[in-house]
Amino acid sequence: MSSERETGLALDPKYDANGLITAVVTDAASGAVLMLAHMNAEALSLTQTSGFAHFWSRSRGRLWKKGETSGHVLHVVEMRIDCDQDAVWVIARPAGPACHTGETSCFYRRVTEDGLERVHD
Amino acid sequence: MSSERETGLALDPKYDANGLITAVVTDAASGAVLMLAHMNAEALSLTQTSGFAHFWSRSRGRLWKKGETSGHVLHVVEMRIDCDQDAVWVIARPAGPACHTGETSCFYRRVTEDGLERVHD
Repeated sequence: MSSERETGLALDPKYDANGLITAVVTDAASGAVLMLAHMNAEALSLTQTSGFAHFWSRSRGRLWKKGETSGHVLHVVEMRIDCDQDAVWVIARPAGPACHTGETSCFYRRVTEDGLERVHD
Repeated sequence: MSSERETGLALDPKYDANGLITAVVTDAASGAVLMLAHMNAEALSLTQTSGFAHFWSRSRGRLWKKGETSGHVLHVVEMRIDCDQDAVWVIARPAGPACHTGETSCFYRRVTEDGLERVHD
């Protein structure tokens, strides 16, 4: 199951039926996963050219510069793409909390046997 | 836009139309993002009870224990869920390369202005 897309050096995103790839963002300093979102071709291109993470909001049905209202933008340090090119890993310097709840990361709850518990780290 | 699902302490995954949530796996030691895959309720439950990452393979249409043939299992150290509970972050100790290409991580190519370049780290 190897192909030019999987092993080559051409950017050839495999967009899904809705024209999206998944984007996972980590903090360049802490390594924490901050958030997960989606990009269409325009969001990917704007992220590359501007240096700020852009996404496609599935709930709002529009392009979205992360932090456009909150100011909590994500400065892109590096971007990588996975083997089948349907996901990108954005390594970023966040200007503030990544989560709309005010938490540093959207992943602020640990899954335990009994439910969830808040993470303090 | 806050709700019990977003701020509460009950596990209440928001499965998509296909019954899936997204799972991002990082290496507990290096912090690198290793892979991105999907879980249905059974895969999530098996991951919790067994301590090994299980996924739902969309391409093969079946449950999949990561490493079931290669031996490159993922020992789960911790699992977190994001604000809207449609994605989990699995922090794992990988028993071998996470990518079917033999690379340590599926995200082994950097996106540059000119295409992709292999990452050596």
